Amino acid sequence: MMNSLEEKSLPQKISEDIISLILEENLQPGDKLPNETILSERLNAGRSSVREAMKLLASRNIVTIRQGSGTYIASSPGMVEDPLGFTFIGNKQKLIHDLLEVRFLLEPSIAAMAATNAEEKDIKKITALCDEVEVLLNNHEDHTHKDIEFHAAIALSSKNVVVPRLIPVINSSIPLFVESTGNTLHKETIETHREIADAIAAHDPLRAQDAMYLHLVYNRKRIHLAMK
Amino acid sequence: MMNSLEEKSLPQKISEDIISLILEENLQPGDKLPNETILSERLNAGRSSVREAMKLLASRNIVTIRQGSGTYIASSPGMVEDPLGFTFIGNKQKLIHDLLEVRFLLEPSIAAMAATNAEEKDIKKITALCDEVEVLLNNHEDHTHKDIEFHAAIALSSKNVVVPRLIPVINSSIPLFVESTGNTLHKETIETHREIADAIAAHDPLRAQDAMYLHLVYNRKRIHLAMK
Repeated sequence: MMNSLEEKSLPQKISEDIISLILEENLQPGDKLPNETILSERLNAGRSSVREAMKLLASRNIVTIRQGSGTYIASSPGMVEDPLGFTFIGNKQKLIHDLLEVRFLLEPSIAAMAATNAEEKDIKKITALCDEVEVLLNNHEDHTHKDIEFHAAIALSSKNVVVPRLIPVINSSIPLFVESTGNTLHKETIETHREIADAIAAHDPLRAQDAMYLHLVYNRKRIHLAMK
Repeated sequence: MMNSLEEKSLPQKISEDIISLILEENLQPGDKLPNETILSERLNAGRSSVREAMKLLASRNIVTIRQGSGTYIASSPGMVEDPLGFTFIGNKQKLIHDLLEVRFLLEPSIAAMAATNAEEKDIKKITALCDEVEVLLNNHEDHTHKDIEFHAAIALSSKNVVVPRLIPVINSSIPLFVESTGNTLHKETIETHREIADAIAAHDPLRAQDAMYLHLVYNRKRIHLAMK
């Protein structure tokens, strides 16, 4: 991970102090941070160093700097774009294959957990997203964004706190899947998404798990065909 | 993820141009980037903006800036410390429980994949780390760092390109596990680690998978005891 042997710069050290402060004060997404003057006094640091530290925190998506308004805790603090660095995996076919392998390990069990733990509001959200993806597919419009949201809503319903942070990262691959299957999985996507949503709504873990397996199997078959 | 609705600053845009350049030129970890003068010409940007962009890339661990020497591709480009923002999950007991739940989904299958795909050099590495953890445990020294390396070596042997990026993130929790089990799992850790290493060396996927399950079961039992 981060090379801890390298010397930390002053702004890096101050950014860590600010993280400690966020945790101590239990600041939540959307909360405003104290202004630069207050922070530089509390942390015993120069204002320009505090400003540099804030830029580092913004680049890690821990805070959001709104010009003229102030600095706020980000909506999913610490979740950066492409956190596992998939951009830097050169072989995209291998990446697609291996991401799908990881989805097989995670998503069927997560669907089962969602069927067990989903509350009424979760089920409404999952069903609504299932409807939206179906409409987009039928209209031959881009459904990838809503597809990712559908799987993220299931992850959230599992009530495991790690899973909702993990699944959007793994499913950042959905656009790659859609592209590599030539966008030909309309009928199968609609049917298996519906079966997953219905099984979760019926609180039937095994049915949800099997529906998710079927969904992934269709994807793997098409991807293998496309890669030949 | 990153809020794409917010305006990107000039250094952010330039940092994306530099990422494109890294990908186009297929620069690998340890490779040196062109210097500031060359980059500012190629990207048609001011040198101070290029410098700001490099700081952003360094904070995302894509490049490493070595004072007086130059800027290099980081060893695991794009892998930042705590990429899923676990720091910001307040309830650490729930986090420990849920991370272990995710380890149950991933690690037994990964151990099986490693048993199938490990090469001789992988097996040597896994066995050596298994030995090192055993020595540290017997000497009552801190084994957490080597324990994480042991599981990371297994992930690497799976030959799935996503898994080695995922497992160290999930296993960043090992120090929390060790702490919450009161560091009492010496005998079980030694025995199950050895069984995992031997099964991978014997290229026996099912035995490796079962050994990993047993390892995780011991952990879950102790954690539940400790949480009571």
